[in-house]
Amino acid sequence: MTIRLYDLAATEGRRLSPFCWRSKYALAHKGLAFETEPVGFTDIPKLCGGQYKTVPIIEDGGKTVCDSWAIADYLDATYGDKPLFTSPQEKAGVRFFDTWFSLEIMTRMFRMFVLDIHDRARPEDQPYFRESREKMMRGATMEQFVAGREEKLPELRHALRPLRMTLAGQKWLGGEVPNYADYIALGGFLWAASVLTLPPLEKDDALHDWLKRGFDLYGGLGHSSKTEALAA
Amino acid sequence: MTIRLYDLAATEGRRLSPFCWRSKYALAHKGLAFETEPVGFTDIPKLCGGQYKTVPIIEDGGKTVCDSWAIADYLDATYGDKPLFTSPQEKAGVRFFDTWFSLEIMTRMFRMFVLDIHDRARPEDQPYFRESREKMMRGATMEQFVAGREEKLPELRHALRPLRMTLAGQKWLGGEVPNYADYIALGGFLWAASVLTLPPLEKDDALHDWLKRGFDLYGGLGHSSKTEALAA
Repeated sequence: MTIRLYDLAATEGRRLSPFCWRSKYALAHKGLAFETEPVGFTDIPKLCGGQYKTVPIIEDGGKTVCDSWAIADYLDATYGDKPLFTSPQEKAGVRFFDTWFSLEIMTRMFRMFVLDIHDRARPEDQPYFRESREKMMRGATMEQFVAGREEKLPELRHALRPLRMTLAGQKWLGGEVPNYADYIALGGFLWAASVLTLPPLEKDDALHDWLKRGFDLYGGLGHSSKTEALAA
Repeated sequence: MTIRLYDLAATEGRRLSPFCWRSKYALAHKGLAFETEPVGFTDIPKLCGGQYKTVPIIEDGGKTVCDSWAIADYLDATYGDKPLFTSPQEKAGVRFFDTWFSLEIMTRMFRMFVLDIHDRARPEDQPYFRESREKMMRGATMEQFVAGREEKLPELRHALRPLRMTLAGQKWLGGEVPNYADYIALGGFLWAASVLTLPPLEKDDALHDWLKRGFDLYGGLGHSSKTEALAA
């Protein structure tokens, strides 16, 4: 049976959520048939009887699962073939990677792209997005928050060194084959790529090779959204 | 047969090398009998016919292996029981961890503790250590290099957030059981602990619980060197 994934969408076919991207890669990794249903920020409370506040949500037969980690666990528990995690130790390592990527990379990207996300969100979602994010930013407007963002680019590029150096020594974060750590990072870059008006990477960044290979995976899954160039 | 490990030593029983610590933990993880032979910096060219420039070096029967990653691979290939890496994916993730820890943590620790290492090194090793490290530091003296190190402590503590946050959610970096990522990080802290005159962590840092458990592993392996307090 085809699994349905509620996928955060913006204007012009853009698929925003880094967490939805992880789950799409996870489904593709396992070779499971799935379809995405685009939803906006303000659609989420209307889904599944209002029991969830975030996407991704998957529907698999009569069952619904919310949250990308819970979905990964559900998929491995339900479909044993092509496991996302070959051992608890691998999963524990990916948890570290997720924490690092969130703290050091996603946070910096958010500071640069939050206004771009707003501007590309569906018009009916923009007031909600602005209000909720400006609350997160302790009352700063999005315009204030992203002011001078060009000056923060070197810091973001510098913070990416552990990723860049690891990928200089191995093909994927998973080694010879991509694993969930690759999907986490690819999801973050796809989030940026779907909205950005300021390219985060330099043209000759060694990460482009891995990004291209990652977006090409599973029939070009990463190209299934309108994405702009990541390179300056 | 007992494996011999050449272990970088300083004065008063201090065992310095973060890379030797990894290999000692790796041997203990696998339940292999080993003995350490303390050597100073300037002893290394005299070992094994002068073929190696760094420690750890292990001797196992007639075979010698140098470099902590090569030793880990050798041990898993030679002794199948209790593998250090349960899958190539786990190993690939530990490679990322190693890269992160080296770039973001070890480098910062080196900036703070290089003069302490010098001062605790055996007197006959100090001239070599000063000359080689001041070359690495592009001609700065060690005294210049560590000047104002107290002011860099907040940055080191901040850089440790991914480790701290991961360990808030799981017992070890390896999950329910310690793995080679734990040994890498414990080795870094044991390196600092063996020489430091400036405690890097605050007293209430959540990392202390993990550090204590880690030093206690395998019959208190981490306490087998003179170590000072890590907490301010």
